[in-house]
Amino acid sequence: MSESDQELFNLAMSEDAQPLMYAVKKHITENVDPITDEFFELDKGKEDRWAWHPRQLELLDGAKAKAKESGLWNFFLPNAETGEGLTNLDYAYIAAELGKNPLASETLNCSAPDTGNMEVLERVGTKAQKDKWLKPLLNGEIRSAYAMTEPGVASSDAKNVSTQAVLENGEWVINGEKYYISGAGDPRCKIMIVMVKTSPDAPSSRQQSQILVPIDTPGVDVVEGMQFFGEDGAPHGHMRIIFDNVRVPEENILLGEGRGFEISQVRLGPGRIHHCMRSIGQGEKALELMVKRAGSREAFGKPILKLGKNLEVIARARIEIDAMRLMVLQAAKAMDVLGNREARVYVSAVKAMVPEKVCQIIDQAIQIHGATGVSQWTPLPSMYATQRILRLADGPDEVHHMVVGRAEAQKHECW
Amino acid sequence: MSESDQELFNLAMSEDAQPLMYAVKKHITENVDPITDEFFELDKGKEDRWAWHPRQLELLDGAKAKAKESGLWNFFLPNAETGEGLTNLDYAYIAAELGKNPLASETLNCSAPDTGNMEVLERVGTKAQKDKWLKPLLNGEIRSAYAMTEPGVASSDAKNVSTQAVLENGEWVINGEKYYISGAGDPRCKIMIVMVKTSPDAPSSRQQSQILVPIDTPGVDVVEGMQFFGEDGAPHGHMRIIFDNVRVPEENILLGEGRGFEISQVRLGPGRIHHCMRSIGQGEKALELMVKRAGSREAFGKPILKLGKNLEVIARARIEIDAMRLMVLQAAKAMDVLGNREARVYVSAVKAMVPEKVCQIIDQAIQIHGATGVSQWTPLPSMYATQRILRLADGPDEVHHMVVGRAEAQKHECW
Amino acid sequence: MSESDQELFNLAMSEDAQPLMYAVKKHITENVDPITDEFFELDKGKEDRWAWHPRQLELLDGAKAKAKESGLWNFFLPNAETGEGLTNLDYAYIAAELGKNPLASETLNCSAPDTGNMEVLERVGTKAQKDKWLKPLLNGEIRSAYAMTEPGVASSDAKNVSTQAVLENGEWVINGEKYYISGAGDPRCKIMIVMVKTSPDAPSSRQQSQILVPIDTPGVDVVEGMQFFGEDGAPHGHMRIIFDNVRVPEENILLGEGRGFEISQVRLGPGRIHHCMRSIGQGEKALELMVKRAGSREAFGKPILKLGKNLEVIARARIEIDAMRLMVLQAAKAMDVLGNREARVYVSAVKAMVPEKVCQIIDQAIQIHGATGVSQWTPLPSMYATQRILRLADGPDEVHHMVVGRAEAQKHECW
Amino acid sequence: MSESDQELFNLAMSEDAQPLMYAVKKHITENVDPITDEFFELDKGKEDRWAWHPRQLELLDGAKAKAKESGLWNFFLPNAETGEGLTNLDYAYIAAELGKNPLASETLNCSAPDTGNMEVLERVGTKAQKDKWLKPLLNGEIRSAYAMTEPGVASSDAKNVSTQAVLENGEWVINGEKYYISGAGDPRCKIMIVMVKTSPDAPSSRQQSQILVPIDTPGVDVVEGMQFFGEDGAPHGHMRIIFDNVRVPEENILLGEGRGFEISQVRLGPGRIHHCMRSIGQGEKALELMVKRAGSREAFGKPILKLGKNLEVIARARIEIDAMRLMVLQAAKAMDVLGNREARVYVSAVKAMVPEKVCQIIDQAIQIHGATGVSQWTPLPSMYATQRILRLADGPDEVHHMVVGRAEAQKHECW
Repeated sequence: MSESDQELFNLAMSEDAQPLMYAVKKHITENVDPITDEFFELDKGKEDRWAWHPRQLELLDGAKAKAKESGLWNFFLPNAETGEGLTNLDYAYIAAELGKNPLASETLNCSAPDTGNMEVLERVGTKAQKDKWLKPLLNGEIRSAYAMTEPGVASSDAKNVSTQAVLENGEWVINGEKYYISGAGDPRCKIMIVMVKTSPDAPSSRQQSQILVPIDTPGVDVVEGMQFFGEDGAPHGHMRIIFDNVRVPEENILLGEGRGFEISQVRLGPGRIHHCMRSIGQGEKALELMVKRAGSREAFGKPILKLGKNLEVIARARIEIDAMRLMVLQAAKAMDVLGNREARVYVSAVKAMVPEKVCQIIDQAIQIHGATGVSQWTPLPSMYATQRILRLADGPDEVHHMVVGRAEAQKHECW
Repeated sequence: MSESDQELFNLAMSEDAQPLMYAVKKHITENVDPITDEFFELDKGKEDRWAWHPRQLELLDGAKAKAKESGLWNFFLPNAETGEGLTNLDYAYIAAELGKNPLASETLNCSAPDTGNMEVLERVGTKAQKDKWLKPLLNGEIRSAYAMTEPGVASSDAKNVSTQAVLENGEWVINGEKYYISGAGDPRCKIMIVMVKTSPDAPSSRQQSQILVPIDTPGVDVVEGMQFFGEDGAPHGHMRIIFDNVRVPEENILLGEGRGFEISQVRLGPGRIHHCMRSIGQGEKALELMVKRAGSREAFGKPILKLGKNLEVIARARIEIDAMRLMVLQAAKAMDVLGNREARVYVSAVKAMVPEKVCQIIDQAIQIHGATGVSQWTPLPSMYATQRILRLADGPDEVHHMVVGRAEAQKHECW
Repeated sequence: MSESDQELFNLAMSEDAQPLMYAVKKHITENVDPITDEFFELDKGKEDRWAWHPRQLELLDGAKAKAKESGLWNFFLPNAETGEGLTNLDYAYIAAELGKNPLASETLNCSAPDTGNMEVLERVGTKAQKDKWLKPLLNGEIRSAYAMTEPGVASSDAKNVSTQAVLENGEWVINGEKYYISGAGDPRCKIMIVMVKTSPDAPSSRQQSQILVPIDTPGVDVVEGMQFFGEDGAPHGHMRIIFDNVRVPEENILLGEGRGFEISQVRLGPGRIHHCMRSIGQGEKALELMVKRAGSREAFGKPILKLGKNLEVIARARIEIDAMRLMVLQAAKAMDVLGNREARVYVSAVKAMVPEKVCQIIDQAIQIHGATGVSQWTPLPSMYATQRILRLADGPDEVHHMVVGRAEAQKHECW
Repeated sequence: MSESDQELFNLAMSEDAQPLMYAVKKHITENVDPITDEFFELDKGKEDRWAWHPRQLELLDGAKAKAKESGLWNFFLPNAETGEGLTNLDYAYIAAELGKNPLASETLNCSAPDTGNMEVLERVGTKAQKDKWLKPLLNGEIRSAYAMTEPGVASSDAKNVSTQAVLENGEWVINGEKYYISGAGDPRCKIMIVMVKTSPDAPSSRQQSQILVPIDTPGVDVVEGMQFFGEDGAPHGHMRIIFDNVRVPEENILLGEGRGFEISQVRLGPGRIHHCMRSIGQGEKALELMVKRAGSREAFGKPILKLGKNLEVIARARIEIDAMRLMVLQAAKAMDVLGNREARVYVSAVKAMVPEKVCQIIDQAIQIHGATGVSQWTPLPSMYATQRILRLADGPDEVHHMVVGRAEAQKHECW
């Protein structure tokens, strides 16, 4: 065990971060939980499903103001001047708390996909790009989207990006189609980072670039919301967008032509860790619902908890959840210790591991609930849908298994 | 291998039934397929989701008339005077065909839950009951529902039925709550068979009765549609119904007080077989979609069919589907040879086996489709939801495994 | 469903074969069961584990004589002049009976690998080859082996065969190494069919030939018995054999140079079906042991049958066994109806399906037995070892899944 | 996250223990590895499989002397006066090293079941018991056994112990039968701790006691070695022992009558952690063999690593091994922080989790090796057998799942 190996096994939160976590918990309890029911109640009665009710924004902005006041703001940015300088490990613990209330992240300006976009802008943006887009994002004044996935090609192979950007007269002219662009349905979404192919003749990993595209640019057509298992998540949404001769200034490119993949390295690690921590929160929630239902519902004269395999199902869920939590914490630590690039295999391991197992746990919770488990009376069907799509988003399980398997083969010089 | 054992292995369709199957196929191709798109298109634009568009009924009635003319009507009733006298095995083959078009069953007056209700009425109904309800059902003039599942008790234990019926002045007074009552949302649904507890002091399997309740009886409140994975199947629906001092005449009871379970034996076998044959049809559909997608989509320079475990996933799906088909056919044959009661274990075996495996196959098809697999662009999410609820309806998997396990233990005198 | 499809679903034994099955059962009960204990008891005390005790052969020959007298002899050969003309389907039923007593097959001259070797000689042997080797084999005077698998190359790809045969002066000169050659340890084994590479420059499926090699030919070195999970199955054995300049006459080749694969088609189907039927017999045995143990052993105040998931484990085993039986019968029927070549995919399906699932059932039986389950007090560890190697013999599971997957892809023109 | 919770996530080795680990590694490399081949070679040629060859003991004693000299001795005893005072966490890291050479543990006087026996004597032994038995054990002069499992009752329920001890004239008279008593075959084994029922009328958890029984006491009959998957592990062995009116002095009882379970709490945690760390070492070994084989063996024109699901199998193995390691380390830490009793659920979680998953990984390594994987040419069959029995020893998986499931239910007051 080398020095760095040993570090990788210290998964405790730092002492510095603990007060922050308590402050976050307090904020959620005092400022977010009390507005949550009203917020989602308003969701139902809206005429336009793709707009916000003014009262919704009022509630949200109130909680955001309180968070900002207390200094609970933007701490997702590890080691950045603009953020609280949290390590990925410390942030992982806090992300787990945030996962418990669906509004919590946004009140702290820590919600996806803005976190990834802000991190990218912070690290690779020019002064002008930062002034124009990072500043209002850091202030929570606007929201953003990240446009990568395309309907026409296998998303398992990132090199497949087919949306084209061609430089003409100092402008990038973009043509193509993207889908499942999360957050692009939100009326407050003003800017997108779009992955495009700019250099078809370069080596395959240098063909792509990332370009800033304001959503109101002529030629950007937000066609429809994509569903997952019948849900569309309006108004945030997961949108299908057609780019028809969309023109943006040459300087909207990030970092430079052909550096799209390089930028991906920056964003993907932390985002995946946050997703996985929230997934574990969902697994915990499903397990809790499962135990309570099994303990309170009777059949054949005893609680169904005591029938058949149910107790073992619960035990296996607990074991897998605890194992996943340790793995995610270690991947976060690996990003801190080894850097995002070197920690890549750790991140792929948890991305391949967590959503699949959490799906299974939610499915078992459904089974123990009987028909109620698939109904509108429990959050389980919606939780299942959300976790199920995570097995496909940000690279399907298969790709992450490939990354882990290949790294293992390389240890023995077999690849 | 005894004589009857040998019979159980001849799973070929009878020669008599073959012309019928060809006639059904022809009917679907000529009379049903051509109206299907228009029918479902009309579904979308309706003002009241819980009503039919007049043109929808017109299309349906047209196809029904043609089927009736050709004598393709009511053949689900095995060995009954009123039906075509199809065996369960022959019907199973035809059910597989019917499963391919969602309107097909109804055009032949063979859709659930009417088939089960008609079979019950045919077998145990009085002359008066038959005249009043069986006749219009057999004519396809009205539709019906079967109200068994309750939200407040574990549906895995059928003895839990808590809806009460008390005899007062020659009337049954019914109080309780049912949910997931399929078809009760259809405006054409006129009659329900309701499972109630009439005799709380009798031995546990003699406490229940089944009573005919017209849906327009005062006190019947069809409260809302229950969802599964966000879908509600309107206007057919899966309704929550409150019975508040609902009064029906004493003679509306079927077969007599305390005989509710006995009647269940009649209905459950065939219905489960039909469900399972349709599930296999869904598995075939998912496999076909999976192969076509895997064969046409490329990543890393080849079709994803040739990547990783995909071909093995396809192979395993084919093997399991073929095995399930044989098992369902054998269960159908067992009902023909041994009778519904003796074939109970065969039926439980396929009910426990089929929906679980089909869910898995659909899930794998989703995975191979990438994000498109969970979207509105494929039928897969809806297929998944439908199959997932089958693992809970008509007894959850766990109960059917218990039936099979107990029978196995009894062979060795261990139960 | 076409005509031939329909035939594929009639899986009942033919009426003609039924008396034969009863005769076989009677023979086992009267002539084989009574000698079994003594036979295996003698196995223990032998000085040379690789020889037979004279009394063992005496017992065996006695039972063989009785079988021959009753005409129960060589009926494994379907539709052959020399055999009883049993169909594969009928033989499958009988194989299931034979699987119940480890000596039964040999008393009827129906044991592997002789059955495959005799079938090959019968179909493709010359008059001289038949006279010299088939005749004594059909008479049960000698035994034989089939030498295909090699330690140095992946057995999953049959084209890998590296043992070479070169024609020199009217003789094949063979050099190479084979292992897991079943039956080559038996002192009565006199002849081997050896798969060799004769034509390295031909297309890859025409490079191989099969050659008859008497085991006492100079240069044949039967080095050692290969074990599986610590067992070596002496004296039958699974031998490692080195061929060091082994010379046999040119006419010892079967069918002709480069036709080795063609011959494999003849042998593989039936052999795999027989293996699978015996595997199902092992699964039945494991399930029976599991139920009896679970029903008789108590913990926490009740039989362990009623604890946790055990009853569901039993139910799932029953369901899988029944499904596997139907699949094997259908594959046998497919060989009868479609011929061995066309039935190839059916056979691969059961070869991929059965041993894997039977291993799992035996493993579960072990678990329910506690430590006794892995001890010398139950047949379970040995049964497990036998089934586990079947997942690797005659092509590993992966190859058979590939065959099935590819056939599925071809249906949709995706391969 | 409370203070103690945070501690539970710091899984790094202590700085103090690191030099010890390096010393252990050095000792293994310099003193143990060089004698290993000779030691096991001697094993083969012995006349009496149940004795040691004198040269074997000479080799072992030599290495033991060197370890003692370097102070590498008995450090398994956490926080004890007599040991090195290693925490369970630090010892877990060292156990992983010890797991790599089958002789390593014994050369440091750290082999099972002596470690558990010494820990028990250290904690609950009287002065006299310590002088007589603990001293020579700590000196590595004798070895010992722990007799708990019985053939006649379900070992899943520890209360089932049926071996009886009755107090007569100042002596315990013991009658009963034990099996799978590891190490009782070793000629150097002098003392056993025997779990007996002394107080049949006490509450069920106060009926058992543990008594010291010298193995040469009249009436102790070491009948035979129990096998697992055909292996008997001679001369260490896993013995069946009959106690026929065995008489030992009253003072041989440990701690007092009825306190047998209490003592079990002391021993079981650490032992299970050590087993699990060694299991993970076996999993790592299997994974390494799997990767190397898959990388070096070709089929269909490429290394089988690149065929089908193999790379994903490797990736999943890596992920599960890493997750298991973190879980075992956390369970060790829980013993350090919370004490053995409170850490009980953590220990059950890893005992239920690890051997099952390691068995699966070894099985996959076998599959990738083809027939060689089940042969005497790889350690895989023996590794499989060893791990398989761990799913039954020290409580079968089912019991540990029950412990974990019940603890989960208790969190929600459902048990």
